Amino acid sequence: MTTREARPRRPGEFALIAELFAPLSRGFPGAFGLTDDVAVLAPRPGHDVVLKTDSLIEGVHFLRSDPPQTIGRKALRRALSDLAAKGAEPEVYLLALALPEWPDSGWLRAFADGLAADQEEFGIALAGGETDATPGPVTITVTAIGYTPEGELVRRNGARPGDTVFVTGTIGDAAAGLLLAKGKVQASSAEHEFLLSRFRLPVPGLSFGRAMRKIASAAIDVSDGLLADLGHIAETSGVRIEVDAARIPLSEALGEFSGADVDARARAAAAGDDYEIGFTAAPTNEPEIAACARETLTEVTAIGSVVAGQGVRLLNASGQQIVVAKRGYTHF
Amino acid sequence: MTTREARPRRPGEFALIAELFAPLSRGFPGAFGLTDDVAVLAPRPGHDVVLKTDSLIEGVHFLRSDPPQTIGRKALRRALSDLAAKGAEPEVYLLALALPEWPDSGWLRAFADGLAADQEEFGIALAGGETDATPGPVTITVTAIGYTPEGELVRRNGARPGDTVFVTGTIGDAAAGLLLAKGKVQASSAEHEFLLSRFRLPVPGLSFGRAMRKIASAAIDVSDGLLADLGHIAETSGVRIEVDAARIPLSEALGEFSGADVDARARAAAAGDDYEIGFTAAPTNEPEIAACARETLTEVTAIGSVVAGQGVRLLNASGQQIVVAKRGYTHF
Repeated sequence: MTTREARPRRPGEFALIAELFAPLSRGFPGAFGLTDDVAVLAPRPGHDVVLKTDSLIEGVHFLRSDPPQTIGRKALRRALSDLAAKGAEPEVYLLALALPEWPDSGWLRAFADGLAADQEEFGIALAGGETDATPGPVTITVTAIGYTPEGELVRRNGARPGDTVFVTGTIGDAAAGLLLAKGKVQASSAEHEFLLSRFRLPVPGLSFGRAMRKIASAAIDVSDGLLADLGHIAETSGVRIEVDAARIPLSEALGEFSGADVDARARAAAAGDDYEIGFTAAPTNEPEIAACARETLTEVTAIGSVVAGQGVRLLNASGQQIVVAKRGYTHF
Repeated sequence: MTTREARPRRPGEFALIAELFAPLSRGFPGAFGLTDDVAVLAPRPGHDVVLKTDSLIEGVHFLRSDPPQTIGRKALRRALSDLAAKGAEPEVYLLALALPEWPDSGWLRAFADGLAADQEEFGIALAGGETDATPGPVTITVTAIGYTPEGELVRRNGARPGDTVFVTGTIGDAAAGLLLAKGKVQASSAEHEFLLSRFRLPVPGLSFGRAMRKIASAAIDVSDGLLADLGHIAETSGVRIEVDAARIPLSEALGEFSGADVDARARAAAAGDDYEIGFTAAPTNEPEIAACARETLTEVTAIGSVVAGQGVRLLNASGQQIVVAKRGYTHF
């Protein structure tokens, strides 16, 4: 762990960071207790190493008012969600932290506590890190490292005409949670809590991702918006994806909050930060998908189909295209 | 490659980034042309995977006025320098880029061109990346991934009393280059150019690092300041390191600029951004070290010795300790 200061901070604060983070590397001998320049991974035989880097920026992906326990966890979970969608199993992560003056030692402790909780939950460890002072916002860059059995990564490019399109979980909750976090809207207490937690603490579908590894023809982490992300599958697979708007799964809380008509579902499909898995599979695999869903306690919904052509289309009950004003994620 | 926007930017700019960066992934099939969620590395048999993450922040590690060609290269080279000091061979890197509004398309092109030049020079490729908009400074996080033969990483913790302490290259140039870059001081044209290039474009000692892998007892990337970094070797090895101030190697340009007396050498040893390799080895290995230095065209200087005790001491010609006001790197 190297720490560098752009300007004088509270005395001893970088020492505190080292003290808080070193225990997070326990359980991974190749981290050397964060006392060396690098980390070393002895790769798992018969497996590929899967790599993902992802940043979480104050004022872009989280709010200064968010509880610090959830901020590190969200940074970590976003990268884990990418691994999940590819059927990978996470092993370790690297952390690059750019800190302005405002986070105090209490914030830092809570941030590290959050990471510790998630390490426990997902069976991973901190392999290495770097802390720098910045004149800008808190910027957290996580590089997640995991494994898939050799050659078994689920790519974006395998969708074929005739495949069914699925998505895990529910869509649009986090976008509503963000509005609530910013105090722009109100909701009942139970809905508020649920939607806010979906914004602050996404749940990467690691178990389901591993289970569907040999069944899905293509998959993607739904983070930029369901339609935008299915568009990436369509583009790399050279196909068109048609989504039945009425089948886009909404949570009960979001239904209460925003309604559950086709327009509300279309808005949800154009929002972001869902961290669900969008995937395609041959219709003959549907029983196996249902079994994976049951075994991993994952809600999975068939929402459309893959056809010849290009692009992604959202269709109403009459099969007419719904034009969505803005596809994909817009941060605040 | 995923790009996310915090606010409207110039139209098409994120498409430009994708267009500029995709070619950088050629030569690494596991990058999938940056069209998937993750990158995949098929590990090299008999080798460990070496991991390092490192950030370069505008106003902290580089100036907005620095040529954009050198900025990406510096970010990359800082991480490669860590790999070099450990005897590792780099293979690929991941890039997380946080961009405010000011870098225009010309800047982005030049930034990518710089990376392309370094990829060619160091035989590496871009494996994956992420671009986010930020309300703060340009923040570039590189995660470098390389290999060492299984178990052959050169650690910080192997220095033993009786070992000799060495450093590659010259010390203090980059700190002087930074002062020049900020226009705080003046130097002759030739000195100016040399010292500025040492600040903007460090040269990771990859060849020497690999050559000394079985000879060095401990090694570290000298980036936070020679004394601070040798202090890390002393601490993790449980020894004391004594450095003879008169033997700290200064470049001719720095000698002209700052003088070359013991005080100037002490200041250089407390500066930072050198990206040289500090290492220790048994005196019996000195002929082999000299051979490695010749073969890799690397200047190597014996600057001190490892003794029982703790900490690092800078000594004058009489063997008395020189007290250095500030050890280690202070960014501007």
